[in-house]
Amino acid sequence: MSSSRFDLVIINGVVATAADCGSYCIGIKDGKIAALAQAFSPEEIGDAEVLDAEGAYVTPGGIDAHVHIAQDLTTGPGVASGATCADDFDTGSRSAVAGGTTTMVAFAMQTKEDPSLLQVVEDYHKRASDTGCWIDWSYHIIISRVDKDTIRPELDALVKDWGITSLKCFTTYDALRLSDHDLMWLMLEARRLGVTTMMHAESGDIIAFLTEKLEERGMTAPSFHGQSRLPIAEGEATTRAIVLAELVQTPVLFVHVSAASAADAIRAAQSRGLPIFAETCPQYLHLTHADLERFHGPLCFENSKMLCSPPPGLNDDDQEHLWTGLRNGTFTIYSSDHCPFSFKYVPNGCPGIETRLPLLFNYGLMTGRITPEKFVELTSTGAAKLYGMYPKKGALLPGLSDADITVWYPEGKLKPFKLTNEHLHHDVDYTPYEGMEFANWPRYTILRGKIMWKEGKLLGKAGDGLYMKRGESQLAKSPVGMKKDPRRVPLWLHDE
Amino acid sequence: MSSSRFDLVIINGVVATAADCGSYCIGIKDGKIAALAQAFSPEEIGDAEVLDAEGAYVTPGGIDAHVHIAQDLTTGPGVASGATCADDFDTGSRSAVAGGTTTMVAFAMQTKEDPSLLQVVEDYHKRASDTGCWIDWSYHIIISRVDKDTIRPELDALVKDWGITSLKCFTTYDALRLSDHDLMWLMLEARRLGVTTMMHAESGDIIAFLTEKLEERGMTAPSFHGQSRLPIAEGEATTRAIVLAELVQTPVLFVHVSAASAADAIRAAQSRGLPIFAETCPQYLHLTHADLERFHGPLCFENSKMLCSPPPGLNDDDQEHLWTGLRNGTFTIYSSDHCPFSFKYVPNGCPGIETRLPLLFNYGLMTGRITPEKFVELTSTGAAKLYGMYPKKGALLPGLSDADITVWYPEGKLKPFKLTNEHLHHDVDYTPYEGMEFANWPRYTILRGKIMWKEGKLLGKAGDGLYMKRGESQLAKSPVGMKKDPRRVPLWLHDE
Amino acid sequence: MSSSRFDLVIINGVVATAADCGSYCIGIKDGKIAALAQAFSPEEIGDAEVLDAEGAYVTPGGIDAHVHIAQDLTTGPGVASGATCADDFDTGSRSAVAGGTTTMVAFAMQTKEDPSLLQVVEDYHKRASDTGCWIDWSYHIIISRVDKDTIRPELDALVKDWGITSLKCFTTYDALRLSDHDLMWLMLEARRLGVTTMMHAESGDIIAFLTEKLEERGMTAPSFHGQSRLPIAEGEATTRAIVLAELVQTPVLFVHVSAASAADAIRAAQSRGLPIFAETCPQYLHLTHADLERFHGPLCFENSKMLCSPPPGLNDDDQEHLWTGLRNGTFTIYSSDHCPFSFKYVPNGCPGIETRLPLLFNYGLMTGRITPEKFVELTSTGAAKLYGMYPKKGALLPGLSDADITVWYPEGKLKPFKLTNEHLHHDVDYTPYEGMEFANWPRYTILRGKIMWKEGKLLGKAGDGLYMKRGESQLAKSPVGMKKDPRRVPLWLHDE
Amino acid sequence: MSSSRFDLVIINGVVATAADCGSYCIGIKDGKIAALAQAFSPEEIGDAEVLDAEGAYVTPGGIDAHVHIAQDLTTGPGVASGATCADDFDTGSRSAVAGGTTTMVAFAMQTKEDPSLLQVVEDYHKRASDTGCWIDWSYHIIISRVDKDTIRPELDALVKDWGITSLKCFTTYDALRLSDHDLMWLMLEARRLGVTTMMHAESGDIIAFLTEKLEERGMTAPSFHGQSRLPIAEGEATTRAIVLAELVQTPVLFVHVSAASAADAIRAAQSRGLPIFAETCPQYLHLTHADLERFHGPLCFENSKMLCSPPPGLNDDDQEHLWTGLRNGTFTIYSSDHCPFSFKYVPNGCPGIETRLPLLFNYGLMTGRITPEKFVELTSTGAAKLYGMYPKKGALLPGLSDADITVWYPEGKLKPFKLTNEHLHHDVDYTPYEGMEFANWPRYTILRGKIMWKEGKLLGKAGDGLYMKRGESQLAKSPVGMKKDPRRVPLWLHDE
Ligand SMILES: [Zn+2]
Ligand SMILES: [Zn+2]
Ligand SMILES: [Zn+2]
Ligand SMILES: [Zn+2]
Ligand SMILES: [Zn+2]
Ligand SMILES: [Zn+2]
Ligand SMILES: [Zn+2]
Ligand SMILES: [Zn+2]
Repeated sequence: MSSSRFDLVIINGVVATAADCGSYCIGIKDGKIAALAQAFSPEEIGDAEVLDAEGAYVTPGGIDAHVHIAQDLTTGPGVASGATCADDFDTGSRSAVAGGTTTMVAFAMQTKEDPSLLQVVEDYHKRASDTGCWIDWSYHIIISRVDKDTIRPELDALVKDWGITSLKCFTTYDALRLSDHDLMWLMLEARRLGVTTMMHAESGDIIAFLTEKLEERGMTAPSFHGQSRLPIAEGEATTRAIVLAELVQTPVLFVHVSAASAADAIRAAQSRGLPIFAETCPQYLHLTHADLERFHGPLCFENSKMLCSPPPGLNDDDQEHLWTGLRNGTFTIYSSDHCPFSFKYVPNGCPGIETRLPLLFNYGLMTGRITPEKFVELTSTGAAKLYGMYPKKGALLPGLSDADITVWYPEGKLKPFKLTNEHLHHDVDYTPYEGMEFANWPRYTILRGKIMWKEGKLLGKAGDGLYMKRGESQLAKSPVGMKKDPRRVPLWLHDE
Repeated sequence: MSSSRFDLVIINGVVATAADCGSYCIGIKDGKIAALAQAFSPEEIGDAEVLDAEGAYVTPGGIDAHVHIAQDLTTGPGVASGATCADDFDTGSRSAVAGGTTTMVAFAMQTKEDPSLLQVVEDYHKRASDTGCWIDWSYHIIISRVDKDTIRPELDALVKDWGITSLKCFTTYDALRLSDHDLMWLMLEARRLGVTTMMHAESGDIIAFLTEKLEERGMTAPSFHGQSRLPIAEGEATTRAIVLAELVQTPVLFVHVSAASAADAIRAAQSRGLPIFAETCPQYLHLTHADLERFHGPLCFENSKMLCSPPPGLNDDDQEHLWTGLRNGTFTIYSSDHCPFSFKYVPNGCPGIETRLPLLFNYGLMTGRITPEKFVELTSTGAAKLYGMYPKKGALLPGLSDADITVWYPEGKLKPFKLTNEHLHHDVDYTPYEGMEFANWPRYTILRGKIMWKEGKLLGKAGDGLYMKRGESQLAKSPVGMKKDPRRVPLWLHDE
Repeated sequence: MSSSRFDLVIINGVVATAADCGSYCIGIKDGKIAALAQAFSPEEIGDAEVLDAEGAYVTPGGIDAHVHIAQDLTTGPGVASGATCADDFDTGSRSAVAGGTTTMVAFAMQTKEDPSLLQVVEDYHKRASDTGCWIDWSYHIIISRVDKDTIRPELDALVKDWGITSLKCFTTYDALRLSDHDLMWLMLEARRLGVTTMMHAESGDIIAFLTEKLEERGMTAPSFHGQSRLPIAEGEATTRAIVLAELVQTPVLFVHVSAASAADAIRAAQSRGLPIFAETCPQYLHLTHADLERFHGPLCFENSKMLCSPPPGLNDDDQEHLWTGLRNGTFTIYSSDHCPFSFKYVPNGCPGIETRLPLLFNYGLMTGRITPEKFVELTSTGAAKLYGMYPKKGALLPGLSDADITVWYPEGKLKPFKLTNEHLHHDVDYTPYEGMEFANWPRYTILRGKIMWKEGKLLGKAGDGLYMKRGESQLAKSPVGMKKDPRRVPLWLHDE
Repeated sequence: MSSSRFDLVIINGVVATAADCGSYCIGIKDGKIAALAQAFSPEEIGDAEVLDAEGAYVTPGGIDAHVHIAQDLTTGPGVASGATCADDFDTGSRSAVAGGTTTMVAFAMQTKEDPSLLQVVEDYHKRASDTGCWIDWSYHIIISRVDKDTIRPELDALVKDWGITSLKCFTTYDALRLSDHDLMWLMLEARRLGVTTMMHAESGDIIAFLTEKLEERGMTAPSFHGQSRLPIAEGEATTRAIVLAELVQTPVLFVHVSAASAADAIRAAQSRGLPIFAETCPQYLHLTHADLERFHGPLCFENSKMLCSPPPGLNDDDQEHLWTGLRNGTFTIYSSDHCPFSFKYVPNGCPGIETRLPLLFNYGLMTGRITPEKFVELTSTGAAKLYGMYPKKGALLPGLSDADITVWYPEGKLKPFKLTNEHLHHDVDYTPYEGMEFANWPRYTILRGKIMWKEGKLLGKAGDGLYMKRGESQLAKSPVGMKKDPRRVPLWLHDE
């Protein structure tokens, strides 16, 4: 490393953070933000590399807090085939960096057959180590069984040794779902440990019932997927899980919220002051049921794509509802739920790690639907704070934050283009956003001071990313000093 | 029977029905209402018995649509003792008639061990036949297991052969609860048959979780019963079951609603036009948590009474909420949930079949909180219509209705008294309303033209009641011509 | 009058009241219901006229509690022309009786220029006396100025001498509107007197603002009428008036509710237990904005019809909302708001006194959207109870109720026909329901035992109707025993 | 000014902004933030003054966006006395700076007698110029009459020449209130100009009605003030003004929200995506009705204090509701509504410019009820963005933001003390917070790089503050791309 004041300076950028936006310079040293200033003198710059943003937006590197990478395929109709994800830690993170994302949190998934959570994490970590990763990463642990005697020490070790401070649970999928009782038990553990509970909330029973009824009618084509997962299945499970969370008095983040009824339930809980958080994903802002049908022949399994769960909304009213939620604070994070399967496996998810930031930038920030500050909050700072990575990630604080930065194109510099899957760097054979137009895209992606992506070219390598132990959430804390209604909260459970 | 125009005429009464109230005469012949008239001429009266109501209210005989009689004790802490109800069909119905009730619907309860619903009904019917009954009666079937292959013909037979057009299911009690999936399956059967689904809605998982946590803390005294069944447990299960009912598009009656959160969820569903109905009970209008403690020593099982489930509300705000619901139509019926156990068995319910009408008359009608018409609707007509007994029961229609009539005391005629258990005719050793003051009480109870109860004396006998096959519900039909939201209702399931 | 037991008996009818429905006979004597019986013996019948209903519905005569008859035209664009209603008490009531209505309550309207309410009533009463009326009638008083010193004795006299126990006020129309302050002042008077307040709730300021803006844009054609009276104008005023009513603790009936936002506000108030009542009208159940345009050329005043205020809803979602409200009890009454102007005057209302019952019978009862009992409650009993005419009107109680009865055709007897204005008996030159199909219609209309309308022929005369003094409302009372929130209710104002 | 890199550097602070919080150094030059860095080298520091924050919080200087300074007393019972504010621009801003506030926006109030808005502003500006001001300031214009012909050019001039980009209107006080019609007219002007509408929302009619009724009962003592301004008066007017704002499609900020019903209405509007903003004030978080009585003898006018309007809530539930709103984003700003009258004038407001920041710091940030970021958003950044002062004010952006900074005491350094009015620097003879305990207080207040307040001593002078022209709001814009319901929004009004 150079002995000069900075290794890299970024000038002429419009720097946006989660609260602020303005034109100033950024000095980077040893992979960290070192200084922010109106200008740097020639002496200060010295022999540092100078990156001229040319008036473009400069944002903290994207954090994708919901990606499935190198995961076994245990749910959906492809299970029997023994498929795994199309993307491993190499290809998935390569795709990320090309889309302006510098940190990701992937899932380490316990199946009902896995007795040890630690073993699960070690297995996933081996997969990551085998290929290396282009960006910094961490894991959420998915818990699919509650072994009351053995789980506590393992959870302690996950927090202490691995810095895994978030756990995900499911209300659906036979292979994963927990009963309401076990959800509360686990939430109480989460509360003890101060970790964040993530909830995949769709009613498993409603889905199973509707699936049976569809099968009885021979309505088994992929385009009926959405009929087995009516939005109300998500609304019901979300409403219920909020009750459990209030009862246990612990924060919960609802992942991939798609239904207006779910968003409304979340908003109502937030209105009452509960620490309930929500995530939504690009597919719910840009796709509808009609796209499900566009992607499938009505009777044909062979070319089925985009069976994400929950499915996208019915029409643009549903999308509108979510955009409103992005604006008014209902949603804390916006993630890809990148779930990369080649379509021969009839996947239960869709790829999106690379398109996530460009979609929100083009269709949110550039259209005026959201402010630059909100863009940063949703794509980076929210996740950093929610998942205990702040201020190392998600911010541009001198001396405190990694120099993870996305530099966009100045307005008018990039020729608008229609996206095709060939533009992308994942190992998946389609993108649900094929044909959409983009007038901006990350021009530079910088990971801890190193330029990894520059004007369409990958400059780094799979080993550049580092595993990251996470700490306590800055957001997901129970509110202080709030009166509790003894009709809803067992006060005696929380007096201890 | 006499050959005269009438057997019995009631004169000088203020006759109330569910919509009307006014002073006129009632002529009864052969157990039926024969005529209503401003006056009857001496020729019309002939040698009929003349009952002078002296200006008192005359109402259709009470219908108690929720009573546990001669039922095995399968839930609550007394299970191990092999206890049964304190009241059999004789004593229970004797108590009913002394309180102005002329019809009751008791439960025939399938346990998880009973493979045949028909056998269950036959068993209960044997118990009824063994003792006889003072009033007319029928059964609701409680279904605790869903045997998909065998249940359909049995349900058909229950409707056709037994006239059992209502089924009850539970979301709690290990011995009884059904999964959400099975609830929907059963609701779909109910819809096919046009029978009414009754729902005991409390979250079994929340109760189990809280019970474990109470036990861990040694908080096992009966007065903690309410802490294991937080009102939100009822609110959650009610909210959820409404979703299931909307999805299946079938009417549901929520039994013994006690929590404001449950009542609100029901009201919201009704506001959206769904055929959701509700029942509440005297214990929720007159008792609170404080009574739970009054009835129990804090550490003492021996004299525990009144462990009804759900427990009564926290304070008079909860009661007030239910009174408002009685007034504004949220509640269709008001039942006793008579659950008679001697307190040595630590019961999970409380007796009330005899006090039901007097409580609502004294504390509702006489105070002006409800109108006489509403009194009749809640105590008689609502149940008759909801459960397919109308217009035979619950009305005073000439030629159509049984002459089941309760005649009250004229104002000021009965000396106000404080209730003690000695006043009552059940076989239970306490009443939760001990010490409450009453200024009116049924003066005459008339069953199909026969005076069964007269000024404090029983005149009939156990065999006077008849079993009654019920028909289709007049109320619980899916509304016609309502648009359905495809986000909440699987339209394809209902197109058939 | 005959000396026999009855003058008229109706046999073979399916008699419906607000709570009951069944087949029995009705005996009428001296204009009153004398007896109801399964059957009458030949001796009882004697020489009474026998009307065989042939299995058809028999309902209490319709009560139209909202009609404008012989009223001066003070609002709307026709004001300048000095127009009056097309219908006087003769033609309006003739039209009523031909549509099954036997009682109406018309408005006696104070203008800002009328100092004396009593004088206003006397003027209207002269108009009624001059022509006579085919049916029984009464008046609501419209109050458009609050003269605090003189109004009290006049209101006392209206109640005592005229039996006028309802007053209507407006939040719009410069000629009529009262400030919120004066509304509360008047409500407090209404509370003192125990009379019912009727509220025409549309925001006068919103309408004036939008009208100005439309005029600035030259959007003055009648089809823009709806744009000046956005549904939210009704929602806002309704929400506001409910606050005033709660503050004053007095019952309020909202007339001609058309907007979903208004219906929701009313429902929410009822859910909280407030004595808030609502009326809707046929035009809001059957017409939409599209009909406004159908009835008007876009730029043409000449043939403008159907400018009712508020205007009908945007589409069938709005209609659906109101049907739901009819079913679930949000609405207590269903009135015509008969506002008969020949279209040369560009009216602000539409005719409907004759089509009111047939529309609800054909499109509500016959389709299964509402029950026969609900039909009676909405068309007759609700108004009788709300406006202090019960049980003389709106019921079939022996000795108590006038023999006002509508007998319908047996199913299949009347050949379905398309309505044209020629079928109707009003003095208006159009009907908004032109072309709608009807398969039933009142066959006989009976006023106090006299058949006034028989199978398409008028039998009575204008003088047959009697003026009726009304008493206290049975419905519109403040609820007893309800806790009041001191944030919403000035407790000190109600302690007196 | 010095030629060195900085004039002042702040080291060892925990710097909080609206989104971020961390420990780094701030370099200040020429009154601006020049650089933020992990550390500055000795060369960089040069001869700059070094302020060691010793680990304490360093926050952007407070912005009090709602203060009444040198204002005529036109409302409240003191009107007759011709009183004016106790604080002029000197004493008011002196008090501000001693409480950590570096910018204020005062009101220039048009009375009904003032024909010219520009003249009003010039008058107020003369008052400010006469005394000078310790901190930077601007004006909101209060508009109490809508002269359609003359107001437009004046509004244009206010925006262009004075940088006044916010206008306030009232729904109460005879001297100030506008009709709903005029409110919409003015909102439409605000929309044309892109300025923010501020709304004092209490129903003038409800207040007038209740005041009359109180007077009739002789309930005129100051402690009855709250009874004339029931919380529902605020709830009603807020609900109504939101309808007007949605109709006009313009942002509205509700000032001094105190009632839960108002906060709920605002939250509901935000949930629907409307640009509705809210402000609350310390008196509503810390005082209740009980304090009203504590401050007044029940019958005694002489020592009446703290008649703020709206009055504080009924009890701590009301306070709790507002705290929840602070946390969940319902409130954008937190202002003092400093309304300084000596109590001999029976004021209609209470002083609080100096205690505002310390109260929220001690009772919000220090207790954990809000985060440091939220503290900054509420006390500074929110107002800067809402009122067009950002990023000059409310941020710490290099080269862009004024160096307005508040440095707090390190934890434990300041001895906790009980506040008395002697501690304060306003010209008012009481504080409503007398006796409350404080463990922290601004240690340094820095205005554009100059230390104005240091450890209890004032260092600057009245002339140090500068008048500030404001620009467009960053927050108060109509949302882009939102579908509008034609039942609520006149689409044709917004197509232009
Ligand atoms: Zn998921
Ligand atoms: Zn996922
Ligand atoms: Zn039960
Ligand atoms: Zn029961
Ligand atoms: Zn009207
Ligand atoms: Zn009208
Ligand atoms: Zn104000
Ligand atoms: Zn103010």
